[in-house]
Amino acid sequence: MQIRVVVPIIGQQWAEEAEKAYGELARPGTVVSAMAIEKGPASIETHRDEALAVPGVLFEVQKAEQQGVDAVVIDCMGDPGLEAARELVSIPVVGPAQAAMHLAAALAHRFSIITVLEQTIPVVEEQVVRYGLAGRLASVRAVNIPVLEIKGDKERVAAALVEEGLRAVREDGAHLIIPGCTGMIGLARRVQEGLAERGCPVPVIEPPWAALKLAESLVDMGLSHSKRTYPAPPDKEIVGYEFF
Amino acid sequence: MQIRVVVPIIGQQWAEEAEKAYGELARPGTVVSAMAIEKGPASIETHRDEALAVPGVLFEVQKAEQQGVDAVVIDCMGDPGLEAARELVSIPVVGPAQAAMHLAAALAHRFSIITVLEQTIPVVEEQVVRYGLAGRLASVRAVNIPVLEIKGDKERVAAALVEEGLRAVREDGAHLIIPGCTGMIGLARRVQEGLAERGCPVPVIEPPWAALKLAESLVDMGLSHSKRTYPAPPDKEIVGYEFF
Amino acid sequence: MQIRVVVPIIGQQWAEEAEKAYGELARPGTVVSAMAIEKGPASIETHRDEALAVPGVLFEVQKAEQQGVDAVVIDCMGDPGLEAARELVSIPVVGPAQAAMHLAAALAHRFSIITVLEQTIPVVEEQVVRYGLAGRLASVRAVNIPVLEIKGDKERVAAALVEEGLRAVREDGAHLIIPGCTGMIGLARRVQEGLAERGCPVPVIEPPWAALKLAESLVDMGLSHSKRTYPAPPDKEIVGYEFF
Amino acid sequence: MQIRVVVPIIGQQWAEEAEKAYGELARPGTVVSAMAIEKGPASIETHRDEALAVPGVLFEVQKAEQQGVDAVVIDCMGDPGLEAARELVSIPVVGPAQAAMHLAAALAHRFSIITVLEQTIPVVEEQVVRYGLAGRLASVRAVNIPVLEIKGDKERVAAALVEEGLRAVREDGAHLIIPGCTGMIGLARRVQEGLAERGCPVPVIEPPWAALKLAESLVDMGLSHSKRTYPAPPDKEIVGYEFF
Amino acid sequence: MQIRVVVPIIGQQWAEEAEKAYGELARPGTVVSAMAIEKGPASIETHRDEALAVPGVLFEVQKAEQQGVDAVVIDCMGDPGLEAARELVSIPVVGPAQAAMHLAAALAHRFSIITVLEQTIPVVEEQVVRYGLAGRLASVRAVNIPVLEIKGDKERVAAALVEEGLRAVREDGAHLIIPGCTGMIGLARRVQEGLAERGCPVPVIEPPWAALKLAESLVDMGLSHSKRTYPAPPDKEIVGYEFF
Amino acid sequence: MQIRVVVPIIGQQWAEEAEKAYGELARPGTVVSAMAIEKGPASIETHRDEALAVPGVLFEVQKAEQQGVDAVVIDCMGDPGLEAARELVSIPVVGPAQAAMHLAAALAHRFSIITVLEQTIPVVEEQVVRYGLAGRLASVRAVNIPVLEIKGDKERVAAALVEEGLRAVREDGAHLIIPGCTGMIGLARRVQEGLAERGCPVPVIEPPWAALKLAESLVDMGLSHSKRTYPAPPDKEIVGYEFF
Repeated sequence: MQIRVVVPIIGQQWAEEAEKAYGELARPGTVVSAMAIEKGPASIETHRDEALAVPGVLFEVQKAEQQGVDAVVIDCMGDPGLEAARELVSIPVVGPAQAAMHLAAALAHRFSIITVLEQTIPVVEEQVVRYGLAGRLASVRAVNIPVLEIKGDKERVAAALVEEGLRAVREDGAHLIIPGCTGMIGLARRVQEGLAERGCPVPVIEPPWAALKLAESLVDMGLSHSKRTYPAPPDKEIVGYEFF
Repeated sequence: MQIRVVVPIIGQQWAEEAEKAYGELARPGTVVSAMAIEKGPASIETHRDEALAVPGVLFEVQKAEQQGVDAVVIDCMGDPGLEAARELVSIPVVGPAQAAMHLAAALAHRFSIITVLEQTIPVVEEQVVRYGLAGRLASVRAVNIPVLEIKGDKERVAAALVEEGLRAVREDGAHLIIPGCTGMIGLARRVQEGLAERGCPVPVIEPPWAALKLAESLVDMGLSHSKRTYPAPPDKEIVGYEFF
Repeated sequence: MQIRVVVPIIGQQWAEEAEKAYGELARPGTVVSAMAIEKGPASIETHRDEALAVPGVLFEVQKAEQQGVDAVVIDCMGDPGLEAARELVSIPVVGPAQAAMHLAAALAHRFSIITVLEQTIPVVEEQVVRYGLAGRLASVRAVNIPVLEIKGDKERVAAALVEEGLRAVREDGAHLIIPGCTGMIGLARRVQEGLAERGCPVPVIEPPWAALKLAESLVDMGLSHSKRTYPAPPDKEIVGYEFF
Repeated sequence: MQIRVVVPIIGQQWAEEAEKAYGELARPGTVVSAMAIEKGPASIETHRDEALAVPGVLFEVQKAEQQGVDAVVIDCMGDPGLEAARELVSIPVVGPAQAAMHLAAALAHRFSIITVLEQTIPVVEEQVVRYGLAGRLASVRAVNIPVLEIKGDKERVAAALVEEGLRAVREDGAHLIIPGCTGMIGLARRVQEGLAERGCPVPVIEPPWAALKLAESLVDMGLSHSKRTYPAPPDKEIVGYEFF
Repeated sequence: MQIRVVVPIIGQQWAEEAEKAYGELARPGTVVSAMAIEKGPASIETHRDEALAVPGVLFEVQKAEQQGVDAVVIDCMGDPGLEAARELVSIPVVGPAQAAMHLAAALAHRFSIITVLEQTIPVVEEQVVRYGLAGRLASVRAVNIPVLEIKGDKERVAAALVEEGLRAVREDGAHLIIPGCTGMIGLARRVQEGLAERGCPVPVIEPPWAALKLAESLVDMGLSHSKRTYPAPPDKEIVGYEFF
Repeated sequence: MQIRVVVPIIGQQWAEEAEKAYGELARPGTVVSAMAIEKGPASIETHRDEALAVPGVLFEVQKAEQQGVDAVVIDCMGDPGLEAARELVSIPVVGPAQAAMHLAAALAHRFSIITVLEQTIPVVEEQVVRYGLAGRLASVRAVNIPVLEIKGDKERVAAALVEEGLRAVREDGAHLIIPGCTGMIGLARRVQEGLAERGCPVPVIEPPWAALKLAESLVDMGLSHSKRTYPAPPDKEIVGYEFF
């Protein structure tokens, strides 16, 4: 099975990192390839960043289908372009936020998401409302470390996730924790152990892994998103995007 | 007061039409100027179209603030780029869907939206959920006339709006009707009269007018969107968009 | 345009104050006249007070329409008699709570209302539920200063609004503040500046102003409430109210 | 036990009828007395009517407590004045709509209310929202017989309740029916039998009876409404109501 | 009137205690008999316990109807087997949690439930969601005393209920308290007085009493649960339960 | 990977059928074994049936963990005993209804479930509420074929699923269909093709497959349900169940 990870920021090194990290999580027989977008922002922290990343995501998703890939994962917790991408292709397109939140809702009474910055908390809260899971949300908290520092200092990020996770469990009633940035990939187990050592043994979901598993499962079952929800766009004049 | 209408599709003729149509609705003393985006789709009917329109919208909104305009109206019922645009500027940015829906919720028990195509019904339903007004929605219906024909045959569109409006009132319990495309501008009164003649005297909101009034009101009150909800994006490298 | 402010408490001095205060907020060309009710309570702090104010409000709203006024604003955050008044007349009748809350929901992720007394908090919470905006409410807080002292000591009220506003932003996640009593008229700007000085620059809505703008906008657009939601009451015997 | 039925319309004959009808439903040892209001409307069909009935209701509820009555039932499905009356007294004040709806929610998956007129349907829908039971509502339907004819032609009303009840069960998924006007008192059993004969054996609640049972139960248990929700109003000047 | 209390734990002494305690709460003319289940757990603290108690509850409820009893109360705040039992019989079957919560919602803005153990808090929260009353819930708190100690040390339990009740009122905005275990029977009045002495005079509901009153009321009114919600199970082979 | 399917009805032939059917859906390397319960009902159509099946399910789940199995799937759309079973073990326990509904919510705007009998519709509706996905439900419909005939006449069942699926899409706005009984295993693809042939190409989820994929995914990720939501039950006396 071929799964394409679309990295919605510029910088081919991020694609290389993603290919390696997702590849380690894939099951035997799944081949992961990753592509970063060529035009767009260096990181996604605001609606502006997301808006400028999405055209590149659409290009990469379309290309992936043309190349015969079986499914696509968009490598960002904003699930940028998820809906538009699903209109363009028939293969499954999966977002780590949507995948992780539905998994969380199935495993625990209430979950908390630990996002990057204080200011993205309302963005995540609205996302949970949009996915229809507000009744399962305990809280959204932030580690307050900028996205571009996330990858540089994993120890500090893991420690901050444990601290905020403890508060989520003790003060907000969370029973499960979701790290809220795909740049935190590889930390879920460490955070889960850290929470257990501190007396809070709760599951910690790795959103990229949840997305990868969902993609694999959909391909196995021959299922994809509903084209009645995501109908193919009609042909029309489009200016300024060479690929449409 | 200077109000800029940003038309999120390509074609300078649409800007000219919008400038004229909005100008007729503005109150004395309000000067309306309109700009179409330079890159993007010829119409907005899907998430894909919206995604490709938003970068152009952001460019135009930013330019409007730099030119000293007092407020911006985005001329499309998808309110494309509303959230990202609010991050970029301090002047009020208003969407006709959001303006019309809140007005409808204040004037009637339940409202219906008559959109363009059957396939955009779920998109509108999710928008209502996102704006937090699902409890006030009677139904979303469609006239099933493509966007690009909307402007060409206003008689047919008005007649279809009356038909679907009657069904919305009689079958779905609507007490107020919102035409669901800004291309239907100028038809609200005619539809309201048509409904009254058919025994269903309910208010019909003109969304571009509602947006314009909201923009004027915000400027009068010295109010704008909360920068805590829409914080200014941090500086970062962005590739492929000459204006960022 | 003629707008009538109906003050739902006894005391012609309050009408004079309201006429002056609203008049300063009206746009050029809008003439504001105010009338206090002749029978009813000296202030509105409970359901009992509201119940005894409403018959007088209905009388004044009916009279306003007969006098050719274009729209009515009910000058109290309980919006007392709003629904019944809309049944009686065809001109727009607007309440400052409903106007301010819908405006808040359009400008910010979540808003807080700072009401007068601790004991009115549940009343306001139920009002937000009734208006269908519970999903947008961060909190209701109180300054704990009786209504009749509100007008006497504006400095103290403004300071208390800043204090509770800060708590609403920092502890409850509010992104916008609504002062919860029309007796606080004229303080919004000062409170907004006070919050900004304390590091919390969020919009503060002036509910009477929001109501006035909504009334002006509805008259401009030729819109009013739906008579399907607020049908004219049938003729019937009514005893003890000389005006019905 | 002494229970006072307050009839919120003018006409002492309605009090006599109510005293007899409720008296037949009371358990041994419960003495029912009824009082109609002296000022107000001849029937309650709109918000206007309700607003003009409430001051009289408050007077009668206050008088009932002073006379040593144990509990009060307000004899109208709008529960007019319920909240204000609870502020004024410490004895239980009960509304038939609130009592019947909570009972219905405990006995069935979803319930329907058959109200009097088409135009009161949205009023009842909003009442269900206010009582927090919207998730349990199948539909609100109307017999379309004016309130003042309800008492005159019980056969016609019962037949219409069966017809609309059948539609509520078959088309709307109702599992229980609530007649939506206290003027329909005495018909519940007949309607329940009529529905069973037509192949729809579902419970039909008699709202006045539900209210009476709730009042008796509260007195038995020494319970009343929370004074934190309904605090006693502070003393203040009130003009035009001799009894305050 | 004959009312059967089914005690869903093993130990005939609990039935004797329940018969006495409920008997003291019943009105004159109501005869209370109690039966404990013969197979099942010694206490109900988890879903596992509840699952193992329900078959015994069904046996006892069925037997009660065969013996001509008028109504059944299941003596546990989990309302174990309520839905299945209602399928098996036509007489009313009542659960103290459902009865107490609907009563609370009718008497107060928001209520809190004080359950036994921290770990049952999510169970109770989900129960409130299932009963459709989440909008009325202020909080669920725990005294953290195991069920089997509840009956042994009533003083300690009452004191803990007052402490947690105070926190529920002051920190969570509760206006009414429900003790969350039927083993706390007989403490409501004491807790209500304790809260009043500490400056928090709010109603405290005795759930077994609320259930008993509901059962008596239903029998008086000739009402029971809807058989459309709880249809009689079809005949089929069942192995391992001698009574089916 | 070892996955145990627990069939919550009596009859070892059902276990054999399930082992074969699930085995065909498992990925290479996954070994499926199935066990039917020894005590309980012959089919699950009511709450009574479910209540009598759950003790046997708990026994089988516990045994599965002791035998070193990696995860358990409960083979019934009622997910009987899911919560209690999760308390007893640490390995993942998965229900096909929960797995299929979360998958549906991630792939489509709204989904419909086609259950067996008219009378189970409210049971399914309440299940969707409990899983927190009511906002995504288009409708619940029934084929009206008893459970025990489901397995005997797959052609008739598939045809009925297509008919009701068409109505769900056309009349209720469903974008995805879930067959509502695990006895319908193996029909999803045929129903999906049938719907496409009739002009309604929407995804049809096979709930047992969705459950199996979720179980495999959880084992791969080393994740299980939160023990804070499903804590291990304390030791206590239990009578009448030899295995506790």
